[in-house]
Amino acid sequence: MNYSELYSQILSKRSYLCVGLDSDEALLPECLSGAENPVFEFNRQIIDATAEFTVCYKPNTSFYEAYGVRGWKQLEMTVQYIKENYPDIFVIIDAKRGDIGNTAKRYAKAFFENMDADAVTVSPYMGSDAVTPFLEYPGKWAVILGLTSNESASEFELSGEPALYKKVLTQFSSESKDNTMFVVGATRPELFQEVRKICPDHFLLVPGVGAQGGDLASVAKYGLNAHCGLLVNSSRGIIYASNGADFAAAARREASALAARMSETL
Amino acid sequence: MNYSELYSQILSKRSYLCVGLDSDEALLPECLSGAENPVFEFNRQIIDATAEFTVCYKPNTSFYEAYGVRGWKQLEMTVQYIKENYPDIFVIIDAKRGDIGNTAKRYAKAFFENMDADAVTVSPYMGSDAVTPFLEYPGKWAVILGLTSNESASEFELSGEPALYKKVLTQFSSESKDNTMFVVGATRPELFQEVRKICPDHFLLVPGVGAQGGDLASVAKYGLNAHCGLLVNSSRGIIYASNGADFAAAARREASALAARMSETL
Repeated sequence: MNYSELYSQILSKRSYLCVGLDSDEALLPECLSGAENPVFEFNRQIIDATAEFTVCYKPNTSFYEAYGVRGWKQLEMTVQYIKENYPDIFVIIDAKRGDIGNTAKRYAKAFFENMDADAVTVSPYMGSDAVTPFLEYPGKWAVILGLTSNESASEFELSGEPALYKKVLTQFSSESKDNTMFVVGATRPELFQEVRKICPDHFLLVPGVGAQGGDLASVAKYGLNAHCGLLVNSSRGIIYASNGADFAAAARREASALAARMSETL
Repeated sequence: MNYSELYSQILSKRSYLCVGLDSDEALLPECLSGAENPVFEFNRQIIDATAEFTVCYKPNTSFYEAYGVRGWKQLEMTVQYIKENYPDIFVIIDAKRGDIGNTAKRYAKAFFENMDADAVTVSPYMGSDAVTPFLEYPGKWAVILGLTSNESASEFELSGEPALYKKVLTQFSSESKDNTMFVVGATRPELFQEVRKICPDHFLLVPGVGAQGGDLASVAKYGLNAHCGLLVNSSRGIIYASNGADFAAAARREASALAARMSETL
């Protein structure tokens, strides 16, 4: 999927919502306890309930790896389900992989060939060797960590002159906006203006709205560009909106409400 | 396993060799093509042939993830095989994970609970939030990326005043040498003196000897401390020493030769 296809979907749904499928087997509603693949079954119902308001799904690999082979299988099933039933929805594997060329190529194979995801989050610590192998797949994206939403982002990302996150954005801003985006957390919205000076056109993946305290209005005010340029993620606020048998309906309500607020900002 | 147990093993084997199990299904010897779990079978034979000279095995997750569920299963089998048959050998999962607390905890569960590995490599980009969840398991280790062996380490790790890798080493050098070590590549041996000024006592995991051009003698000269303090990794030079039916014997020869050179430096 390229930039303009992603933007088209945003316009048609009037939403730039990314739903984080951080689905932990230990936290599923009771009603799924008998299912053969409970995490997949949970995801499937969440996806069917929220797809109308969602332009992107983002499973984080840790929640699947924590259950070994069983977890990995349900991650694969989830991505396949989205791609078969909602081919226009963008899928980001939130893996934060970061390793050198030889090894990064295998990660790209894992997520772009075996899973057919659209994008992978990538840690830039080791430099461009860790990023460029992901850019060699036409229509696939690297989502590079820039300024993350957590408190200890201050230790390295925000440290230095210029700050490390600015070096990272500057280094990779010359990569095409058709296959590169950046993670910028919602918890420091005042810095979106700095970010947009460095990469005015690229999409930003924005975690940290909701449970982590980030504010959608501020993110939209400083982060939107002429082609939207934002994918704002919510995970727990949507997928765990209810822990009862109505979990999918509750997720739909939350997704719908968040998308409605996004629509006002477009 | 703690620091003194690891050091005891090094003394008894007179080796600080780490064998990197970067075992790619596509590169296995022809003779394994009929095996049900060819990567595990390859690893098993490599392990049996090299264990006498080896204090540490280090599978890199990318080579396993690239084959999905099948790959992940063989990674689990490999770690289990080592722990059952060679319980004194240290196992590092080279995963370079780096995510915030909530998520990092799941990675720790994946590698420390489900797999019983001793250590995981961790990317420090996001700060201590991404590291501390791994330090909460008694006897388990976080191996934090410091200065990696690849060329583009110059872009961020070696950039800034002080350089980013020094900030990372300084930040985490206050963590116990019983559960924290650092990755420092062999390709810039002159910088080991700088590294040892910041963390004189911690173990360093050193990739980049062999195929990547690093030199063991220089690494030993500047990197060894009073308790060895080094785990030097070789992957391709050992596991792919032969592509024929004699692959395990060839790996044993290479491991033995490298361990003999290590013995001279101790």
